[in-house]
Amino acid sequence: MVRHRLMTPGPTPIPEAARLEMAKTLEHHRTPGFRRLLAEVLEGLKYVFDTTSDIAVLSSSGTGAMETCVASVVPRGGKAIVLDSGKFAERWADICEAYGIKVVRYEEPWGKSFEADEVARLLAEHADAAAVYATLSETSTGVGHDIEGIGRAVAASGALFAVDGISGVGAMECHMDDWGIDLLAVGSQKALMSPPGLAFVAVSEAAWQRIESIERQAFYFDLAAYRKALAGPDTPWTPSRPLLSALAASLRQIREESIENVWRRTATLARATRAGVAALGMELVAERPSEALTAAFLPDGVDAKAFLARLEGRFGVKLAGGQGPFSGKIIRIAHMGQIDELDILSTLSAIELVLAEMGQSVKLGSGVAAAGSVLLEEE
Amino acid sequence: MVRHRLMTPGPTPIPEAARLEMAKTLEHHRTPGFRRLLAEVLEGLKYVFDTTSDIAVLSSSGTGAMETCVASVVPRGGKAIVLDSGKFAERWADICEAYGIKVVRYEEPWGKSFEADEVARLLAEHADAAAVYATLSETSTGVGHDIEGIGRAVAASGALFAVDGISGVGAMECHMDDWGIDLLAVGSQKALMSPPGLAFVAVSEAAWQRIESIERQAFYFDLAAYRKALAGPDTPWTPSRPLLSALAASLRQIREESIENVWRRTATLARATRAGVAALGMELVAERPSEALTAAFLPDGVDAKAFLARLEGRFGVKLAGGQGPFSGKIIRIAHMGQIDELDILSTLSAIELVLAEMGQSVKLGSGVAAAGSVLLEEE
Repeated sequence: MVRHRLMTPGPTPIPEAARLEMAKTLEHHRTPGFRRLLAEVLEGLKYVFDTTSDIAVLSSSGTGAMETCVASVVPRGGKAIVLDSGKFAERWADICEAYGIKVVRYEEPWGKSFEADEVARLLAEHADAAAVYATLSETSTGVGHDIEGIGRAVAASGALFAVDGISGVGAMECHMDDWGIDLLAVGSQKALMSPPGLAFVAVSEAAWQRIESIERQAFYFDLAAYRKALAGPDTPWTPSRPLLSALAASLRQIREESIENVWRRTATLARATRAGVAALGMELVAERPSEALTAAFLPDGVDAKAFLARLEGRFGVKLAGGQGPFSGKIIRIAHMGQIDELDILSTLSAIELVLAEMGQSVKLGSGVAAAGSVLLEEE
Repeated sequence: MVRHRLMTPGPTPIPEAARLEMAKTLEHHRTPGFRRLLAEVLEGLKYVFDTTSDIAVLSSSGTGAMETCVASVVPRGGKAIVLDSGKFAERWADICEAYGIKVVRYEEPWGKSFEADEVARLLAEHADAAAVYATLSETSTGVGHDIEGIGRAVAASGALFAVDGISGVGAMECHMDDWGIDLLAVGSQKALMSPPGLAFVAVSEAAWQRIESIERQAFYFDLAAYRKALAGPDTPWTPSRPLLSALAASLRQIREESIENVWRRTATLARATRAGVAALGMELVAERPSEALTAAFLPDGVDAKAFLARLEGRFGVKLAGGQGPFSGKIIRIAHMGQIDELDILSTLSAIELVLAEMGQSVKLGSGVAAAGSVLLEEE
């Protein structure tokens, strides 16, 4: 008997109240009741994103939200700057290329972060860039980028600033309006503790002006259609009401705790996790770590696939492995959403035991002790 | 105390077994367990669509599936023939236009159906048309189009045949392979008795050849990405596992009954509904009715908005009203999925009572009697 424990940086565990919402009898979506539900969800999302902007609610994965931020604002043949140091940052470039957009890459090795000054320099060199695409929390490397600083650099230019906040928003501070973000893409299945299948794009006034000035290049992901429907508020295409009901329940939980408390708690869990893996001799991947997840290199000689399989088979703990150049080399542990202190401590004890089983010299309890010390300090 | 009764042509009621699947603890989607779930869903969908073709499972509404059938197969500047006689048929043309595709319209007034011979004539006149876009069951008018006949006309040309089967497939006969359909778009929330949020595109070998020959025009809806992932089987972007688990439960129910029995049962309910509304003096909208829903004109002088509100407020029966030119003039009643005989009879009795309340001379019981007679004959 092994209980399943989802500790991956998306999807994350869903609160019971949200799961039970989905089991209810389905009601139609072109009704006053649905408009009340959508209005509540929009208020909750604005609170979490710290914005007064309009928010488009999409039935899609986060990738659909990213595509929306490209297709609606940069015309074919236009130019975009992409800050690329990870799998999801690369996706910005891939999407741009699918739309015939010229991509200027600011590349850093996976695990590294970006300098706002270099973004400013690139914007000066490419004054015709229509948008800058960046990532708040790069899920493939566990890096938390300096969106506030980069935002200041972009604000001084004529470009729009689009941020992939899919795994970061709700886990770490992100002030859309104050940081000058024009397009913020977020997914349901990370820090928002909701089922996969919904994604969100918050849109600044400057972005709306751009959207209205360019020719439509897509249909389902055309933001103009969402803006028209938001007057209801409504969605232009059939929404997934069960997923929205679940999201509303999770957002209620966030508001009850307050987003500042969620950020603080998540940051503490992040510090505890980093201390725990460091005590076990594992090096962090990120030079500037995200609060949403911790990515760490396994000790030399430990086969990642066997390690993760053993962790899941013996203890039910599901972690994520590495992608791209980090495939087979790293593990990724989530500490966002409803993941709590004991989830982190028990995950660390499982990691200790499996490392010991695999012949590593590990002092049992050392990872847990290091993490526990952080939790005591924060008390 | 009024119990809610969802009788709209999408979304439709979801079986309890499917709803309860969504309440379960979430598991990750990059796992052997997920691949087994997806494999089961794909088998179930192939069974319902009567095809051996590959099927792409999208996290989107049905509109996303339609866009996929356009963006992946007709290049910008190419030409498409759209069979247009309703709100959803028009959507084919709108999507084509968003992609810069030249649209040749075969237009008929709403409620009318198409002649295969005229499609053949148009194909001869426009030999450069890359695709023909048609609709199996036009949800806005309740028309069931002659997809088999039109398919024969298209098969004699070099064009691909794309069909919107969103509200039709699973409710009425549709043999993708035998009817020469190259791209079949289907949604989860109609006859498949599942929550909104999933959509499907089944793709013939001829369509795959076309897809591989043209340049990518979209990202999330690019079929080539789905084909690559299907080797898993997997999805290219994060899928909504709770929605897929619900769909698997509903598909199991369809297989248990057998799709032939589902078609037969649905056709009987359709005949009973048509007999019922006719006995109440209401004229059918469709010259060639769909088996999925019945659209009927309200008697002169009956305000549709007041009628539908009364039906829902007093009896909990949620029907759909009219769209476009039929706004305020018609009602639409679903008889697909898990809607059963007593749902139809009770809906008809509610209609009778509300018509009587609104001053119409209605013989109470006459609609129910006419429908009941059909059910007796079919026994």
